[in-house]
Amino acid sequence: MIRAGIYGATGYTGYELLKILARHPRAAVAFASSTTYAGMRYCEVYPCTYEHVLVAPEQAPLDQADVVFLCTPHGASAPYARRALAAGVKCVDLSADFRLRDLGVYQNWYGTHLAPELLPDAVYGLTEVYRQQISGARLVANPGCYPTGPLLALYPLAREGILSGDKVIIDAKSGVSGAGARPTPTTHFVAAHDNLSPYNVGRSHRHVAELDQELRLYAGRPLGVVFSPHLLPVSRGILSTVYVSTGPSWNDDKVRSLWREAYQHEPFVQILDAGKMATLAHVVNTNRCAMSVCSAGIEGELILVTAIDNLLKGASGQAAQNMNVMFGLDETLGLPA
Amino acid sequence: MIRAGIYGATGYTGYELLKILARHPRAAVAFASSTTYAGMRYCEVYPCTYEHVLVAPEQAPLDQADVVFLCTPHGASAPYARRALAAGVKCVDLSADFRLRDLGVYQNWYGTHLAPELLPDAVYGLTEVYRQQISGARLVANPGCYPTGPLLALYPLAREGILSGDKVIIDAKSGVSGAGARPTPTTHFVAAHDNLSPYNVGRSHRHVAELDQELRLYAGRPLGVVFSPHLLPVSRGILSTVYVSTGPSWNDDKVRSLWREAYQHEPFVQILDAGKMATLAHVVNTNRCAMSVCSAGIEGELILVTAIDNLLKGASGQAAQNMNVMFGLDETLGLPA
Amino acid sequence: MIRAGIYGATGYTGYELLKILARHPRAAVAFASSTTYAGMRYCEVYPCTYEHVLVAPEQAPLDQADVVFLCTPHGASAPYARRALAAGVKCVDLSADFRLRDLGVYQNWYGTHLAPELLPDAVYGLTEVYRQQISGARLVANPGCYPTGPLLALYPLAREGILSGDKVIIDAKSGVSGAGARPTPTTHFVAAHDNLSPYNVGRSHRHVAELDQELRLYAGRPLGVVFSPHLLPVSRGILSTVYVSTGPSWNDDKVRSLWREAYQHEPFVQILDAGKMATLAHVVNTNRCAMSVCSAGIEGELILVTAIDNLLKGASGQAAQNMNVMFGLDETLGLPA
Amino acid sequence: MIRAGIYGATGYTGYELLKILARHPRAAVAFASSTTYAGMRYCEVYPCTYEHVLVAPEQAPLDQADVVFLCTPHGASAPYARRALAAGVKCVDLSADFRLRDLGVYQNWYGTHLAPELLPDAVYGLTEVYRQQISGARLVANPGCYPTGPLLALYPLAREGILSGDKVIIDAKSGVSGAGARPTPTTHFVAAHDNLSPYNVGRSHRHVAELDQELRLYAGRPLGVVFSPHLLPVSRGILSTVYVSTGPSWNDDKVRSLWREAYQHEPFVQILDAGKMATLAHVVNTNRCAMSVCSAGIEGELILVTAIDNLLKGASGQAAQNMNVMFGLDETLGLPA
Repeated sequence: MIRAGIYGATGYTGYELLKILARHPRAAVAFASSTTYAGMRYCEVYPCTYEHVLVAPEQAPLDQADVVFLCTPHGASAPYARRALAAGVKCVDLSADFRLRDLGVYQNWYGTHLAPELLPDAVYGLTEVYRQQISGARLVANPGCYPTGPLLALYPLAREGILSGDKVIIDAKSGVSGAGARPTPTTHFVAAHDNLSPYNVGRSHRHVAELDQELRLYAGRPLGVVFSPHLLPVSRGILSTVYVSTGPSWNDDKVRSLWREAYQHEPFVQILDAGKMATLAHVVNTNRCAMSVCSAGIEGELILVTAIDNLLKGASGQAAQNMNVMFGLDETLGLPA
Repeated sequence: MIRAGIYGATGYTGYELLKILARHPRAAVAFASSTTYAGMRYCEVYPCTYEHVLVAPEQAPLDQADVVFLCTPHGASAPYARRALAAGVKCVDLSADFRLRDLGVYQNWYGTHLAPELLPDAVYGLTEVYRQQISGARLVANPGCYPTGPLLALYPLAREGILSGDKVIIDAKSGVSGAGARPTPTTHFVAAHDNLSPYNVGRSHRHVAELDQELRLYAGRPLGVVFSPHLLPVSRGILSTVYVSTGPSWNDDKVRSLWREAYQHEPFVQILDAGKMATLAHVVNTNRCAMSVCSAGIEGELILVTAIDNLLKGASGQAAQNMNVMFGLDETLGLPA
Repeated sequence: MIRAGIYGATGYTGYELLKILARHPRAAVAFASSTTYAGMRYCEVYPCTYEHVLVAPEQAPLDQADVVFLCTPHGASAPYARRALAAGVKCVDLSADFRLRDLGVYQNWYGTHLAPELLPDAVYGLTEVYRQQISGARLVANPGCYPTGPLLALYPLAREGILSGDKVIIDAKSGVSGAGARPTPTTHFVAAHDNLSPYNVGRSHRHVAELDQELRLYAGRPLGVVFSPHLLPVSRGILSTVYVSTGPSWNDDKVRSLWREAYQHEPFVQILDAGKMATLAHVVNTNRCAMSVCSAGIEGELILVTAIDNLLKGASGQAAQNMNVMFGLDETLGLPA
Repeated sequence: MIRAGIYGATGYTGYELLKILARHPRAAVAFASSTTYAGMRYCEVYPCTYEHVLVAPEQAPLDQADVVFLCTPHGASAPYARRALAAGVKCVDLSADFRLRDLGVYQNWYGTHLAPELLPDAVYGLTEVYRQQISGARLVANPGCYPTGPLLALYPLAREGILSGDKVIIDAKSGVSGAGARPTPTTHFVAAHDNLSPYNVGRSHRHVAELDQELRLYAGRPLGVVFSPHLLPVSRGILSTVYVSTGPSWNDDKVRSLWREAYQHEPFVQILDAGKMATLAHVVNTNRCAMSVCSAGIEGELILVTAIDNLLKGASGQAAQNMNVMFGLDETLGLPA
């Protein structure tokens, strides 16, 4: 039995990890920590049946854990990662602290890095792309919720060199859980319900850094990402509509074939048939990424649509998937297909 | 032109009053005050086009107002009321500060009263019941959102003496705007969406005090209210399902006739035909109260259903209706029918 | 491996059964039938990954099934049940065809019964109450979605004889999936969203028949049910607020103890602590029934609140739970706790 | 008093027109027709208070009308338009029948045209662009819901010649009322709620024809529209995120200035300040179009965001605005600002 500790357990990603671990046949909760709710039972925080008593993070029994999930904000994660690794405990960080290979880029977007010496050890946890490295990693940087879907769709195209032009437009729509559990004017029911709000549009959202980094690695050249996140009146799910240019010799059928080949053995990638477009309903409450492609109606222009559950494939699901890989388990254990 | 000032203008009821005043042909905004947002234009607080610059409440130019609306919390309203009345300005208070005739009852439910000397001046602002008194009042205590619908439905029955037994059950469901604009865990989108939550069930919600007071006045004897509010995943609207016992000589048809007689000239009471039940869709974005009645399937037992928009007939709409009455205007001015 | 056939597989309860069977370690889909979609793959009907090819019901290979789930409407189910039982196949019927012990009562509410000779064989499938009989049954009549929660809450009280008076009021609120997958004006998004609608209020909803029958059996005397269903703007979940009178010697603490004793070994009954009320968020996407109780603020009057997921504990989840019991399996297999 | 008849009055746009006319000080309902509900009072169809008795369309008293609104589907509108014009009654058609100047283009997208002889008389009813022509028109072709926002945003840019490249990407998200009142699997609450679905993506949605036509007219050269509509889980509102290339000498500030100049006297165009993005909450239940612009983070690339209420500025509101223009009235009468 793998013993998994959770730091920051009372955010939405921590709650989701508890659900995953509760049905995981080979892993169990070692501890669940919370600064705010230390001493309370988990079922006093969320309407569930979990009886785990939350511990203060500094009291978390690292010696009883084989792996920890850091569901803490960027900045806060790095010191926990250092402590866990020093104790010989593997680490899946759900924050941005170890996603960016270049320290300068991190500092630009997020400020001071509190454990830069660990950056070389970190593997970007997009499982389908980096499975090999993840299997040997002690520190996995779980991808951001927004990048996961578009990167999975673009990876085979970028690697194959079929993206022409120097720009990719990602029009993304995310459910409100992506904004976190802290009550704010933005996440107030009355503000979000019956509404749709673009925010941090252009190249101002922090996930642009990850998208840039990964696309450049896949394509072998820089690709300018234009990224427009929108807050959607649903609790869960991200749908991304991606506009790309390809050479005139490519079309949606060929891209679909390329995807099918790249992902034929992937349990969590669902490639839709011609004529079908991915929707949130395809993926919510699953760890899948659904992807679809169609012509933009102009030669050489394609529209890719991806959908994920932001709390599963976009966060805790992929984190558990990575844990499974790190410990040599069947990758699907504990995860809703 | 009636000049109306609004204290606490950046809560939901204040926002709604601004909308009403914007389309009111005989009234205009004198000032809009806010402690938090003083100095900002209104359209920087809510997604609207109102250019009013918010003033700090102590800077509010009372001398330029004929009436003020107090959209402030209980406790905070009383001192504003005192100041306004002292300046010769009429006052419609949307808080609970002047709803309860008995100071002891107020203290029981709300704590210290900061202007008890004004209680004798206050008229309970359920327009259809107290119109006469409101027309001569300088201080109107606007009813709570929950009591408004059930009281309008029960008033003709209680007055007529046809309620038997000593208990009335009110199962009420309210949209989230009823919980106010302050972000809390309860009003977080993810907590409220796709959910339904009973709270303060039984006789623990503060609106029980108003319900008790008014029903006793209408019936001439105490009636025990059992009150179960539920938080509903909509922004606006309250639907109340009311279970009453009557003598066996009464039935739904007779109650409907009684209502029609009582409310035949009321512009904001909509009595549904036999076989139709009130729904939120009947009333949202209007100042109406829809009411319907049917047999409970047991002789002498009836089910009344009322629906209002909690921000209009349940708060700002009724407040403006009361202002219209206080100033001798057509009662429907500025109000969506 | 238990081989389970599904008739009427393309309604919401059929879809939910497919999901349960997909994760059930000891059962698998033998066939999924549909009149409308015969010949199509399941993933062409719903946004999922199921590749089952739908068969016309008359083509369904009964000889390859150990049990069938009838997700067909009342009236349609009875003939399928007869055919299945004749073929030696056990049967869980999710329609109302075998819920009512008294043929006359069935005819009153539903019209002609097409297989009345099977009524004596049918067991009412409220698992926690009838587990013993279900374990030996060949025909289980799965309870209606509305009765399940209130009956579980009332069963210990009725059996103990602590319900006084002759009336129980059930104010119930159901998500739209309860109205079925057929598009109608009522289930149109624009009609249901931002709305709350009472319907079939009093004693006119068909589930009254079940409630009456069971409560009479539990209490040993007739109890008049007043039942007010409301359509709630959520997809899944039923919350029922139940008003009961007890002798003055009972209170919420005692009821909670009674529940805890009655249900101490039940995996799918969650009894909330004092001060907590059941909400939809406690149960959606689980097979649990959450129940809570508090004082109505009047001596001898209590308010019970129950919550279930209407498609799980209210339909397909309980159906699978019953299948598990019928085949001697661990009752929780395949079911989300 | 202008007497307005409504054909197809029981769809959502007809309902909205009734609401507008009910508060319009200079216009009134002459008749409301419906094939399905002829003979019923309007308040039996929708939860409202309108007592108009619906007439069969062939019984509609054209001689009592000064203008008719055609809320009928494309194909059905043309014959009603012919009949109305022949009777000397002005006509605002909310269908697509008279939006496309080129008969061949119409036939391509919609099939046979039943009154092609009227095409030369029709004016495209985008009020802010064609006000002059509308004021003298007897037949106005009210724009489609999707084109309205993007065309208003793009008009000043296209006219000014600052759009470079030959492509405009419009990623649009519409509330479910845009799909009409007829119940379908797509508009079922359970299918639309908690979901987001792209459909007719690329250049396959019929509104592409209008967008192409108008942009070509404004820019004086063809511009290829890539159009991705998505079904959004709200009842009302369309938000469009528009990706355009401009010369490097343009930026968001300049575009904002251009808009302010072009629309300075427009009562229904709201241009947001720098740093603010249009959201549905800016416009729902108003006749406004909100528009905002920001840099895409790449030189010469801009993101425009427009928001409208699809039933008001996107349909019935603009139709009434056009009626006001056609009859020389204050353009804002009856319309919520």
